[in-house]
Amino acid sequence: MVELLNDERLDHLLAENLRIIQSPSVFAFSLDTVLLAKFVYVPIQKGNMIDLCTGNGVIPLLLSQRSKAMITGVEIQERIYNMAKRSVEYNELQNQLHLIHGDIKDMPSNLGHGKYDVVTCNPPYFPTPNKDEINKNEHLAIARHEIFCTLEDVVRVSSQLVKQGGKVAFVHRPGRLLDIITLMRKYRIEPKRLQFVYPKRGKEANTLLIEGIKDGSADMKILPPLIVYDDHNEYTKELKEILYGEK
Amino acid sequence: MVELLNDERLDHLLAENLRIIQSPSVFAFSLDTVLLAKFVYVPIQKGNMIDLCTGNGVIPLLLSQRSKAMITGVEIQERIYNMAKRSVEYNELQNQLHLIHGDIKDMPSNLGHGKYDVVTCNPPYFPTPNKDEINKNEHLAIARHEIFCTLEDVVRVSSQLVKQGGKVAFVHRPGRLLDIITLMRKYRIEPKRLQFVYPKRGKEANTLLIEGIKDGSADMKILPPLIVYDDHNEYTKELKEILYGEK
Repeated sequence: MVELLNDERLDHLLAENLRIIQSPSVFAFSLDTVLLAKFVYVPIQKGNMIDLCTGNGVIPLLLSQRSKAMITGVEIQERIYNMAKRSVEYNELQNQLHLIHGDIKDMPSNLGHGKYDVVTCNPPYFPTPNKDEINKNEHLAIARHEIFCTLEDVVRVSSQLVKQGGKVAFVHRPGRLLDIITLMRKYRIEPKRLQFVYPKRGKEANTLLIEGIKDGSADMKILPPLIVYDDHNEYTKELKEILYGEK
Repeated sequence: MVELLNDERLDHLLAENLRIIQSPSVFAFSLDTVLLAKFVYVPIQKGNMIDLCTGNGVIPLLLSQRSKAMITGVEIQERIYNMAKRSVEYNELQNQLHLIHGDIKDMPSNLGHGKYDVVTCNPPYFPTPNKDEINKNEHLAIARHEIFCTLEDVVRVSSQLVKQGGKVAFVHRPGRLLDIITLMRKYRIEPKRLQFVYPKRGKEANTLLIEGIKDGSADMKILPPLIVYDDHNEYTKELKEILYGEK
């Protein structure tokens, strides 16, 4: 049993044997987030991972299917943190998944420096607009705009949390590639794997996935392009494979 | 009539109505160079373009088919400069194409700052190795290794030669993406268009094409991926279109 509030739904999470609480008016996860959870390196048997700006906990939930490591999720909005917590309980993953209601900027002092093998984050994509333009829905505005944390906050905190040689992975918009690379190097996370996601063949990329290593050597690979929809507006074979494990 | 030295050949240049002198032991152009000549923005009716490290002049020759602008090519190796010069004469393009035998580092003082609408360069890709590893063929070694000019030289000189608002385009290896972007920004060439070239579907990129604008605004697009060979090891449709204009 699970308590659902207002317009919340208990959705199936892809082909995984999991359910997740979502709400159109508060928070629903995006394809970008799922791609990040599938893109990032994970230790299989043990270790510690942390997902910043975790929202309704989709990344921790998906990572739990790829790894036996302990996984922490941090969310600043209590309403959304509460959704994530109920989803973890519904899936009976309390022994592996731990959620924190708090500000990511407080995590290095609260949790300690250099303790995590992997840090992930799907940060707010957009600079904070002026008051007239911002989303009137406070929950959605905070998730989408750099209101509580900037990209630099995300990269700095990730670098503080990750171990030497540990991995840090982000998803973002291609227009921020230069910023993200510059910030990663500033905070000693050397970019190693970069993948672009294109909505369709012949279109410009609309998403980037990037993974770096704390104090890694300079040597970046550009992974094969990921194309989301085919000419009939259905998911491509490669995307179905990532999402549903279909071969 | 044209004089051919030693193992030189007079090759057809793609589908263009042009011929080019090449030699396996001195210099032959690569696919990368052709892709750069097709990738870069060109003014159609007039203007000034310059190609640094021009080799046997393949970029100026190809650009002459896309633009009526005046085109300069700079090559440091006299033997190869001489090949380019004879190709220009054979194609009777002396009125549009001008070749200079010299060091690109001398060009800003020789030719003036901020005079060019477009600067292109396919620079040497590899750092200078130690003496044992370097190519014993001096001509090929100079073209491939950073013996006479580093990537920083190329970017700095390009920035000096280009006008405010003018375009600068390079081709390089993906492993140097971070260096090239960092250097472009250092010398005020804001990256605007980035395209990755993949040898085959499902493979990592092996080439990047990048174009920036002198003092442009920050806003970079990732163009659709370019895949060279299909599953039968033949050029893909998109590559044939670029190379031969086939639809």
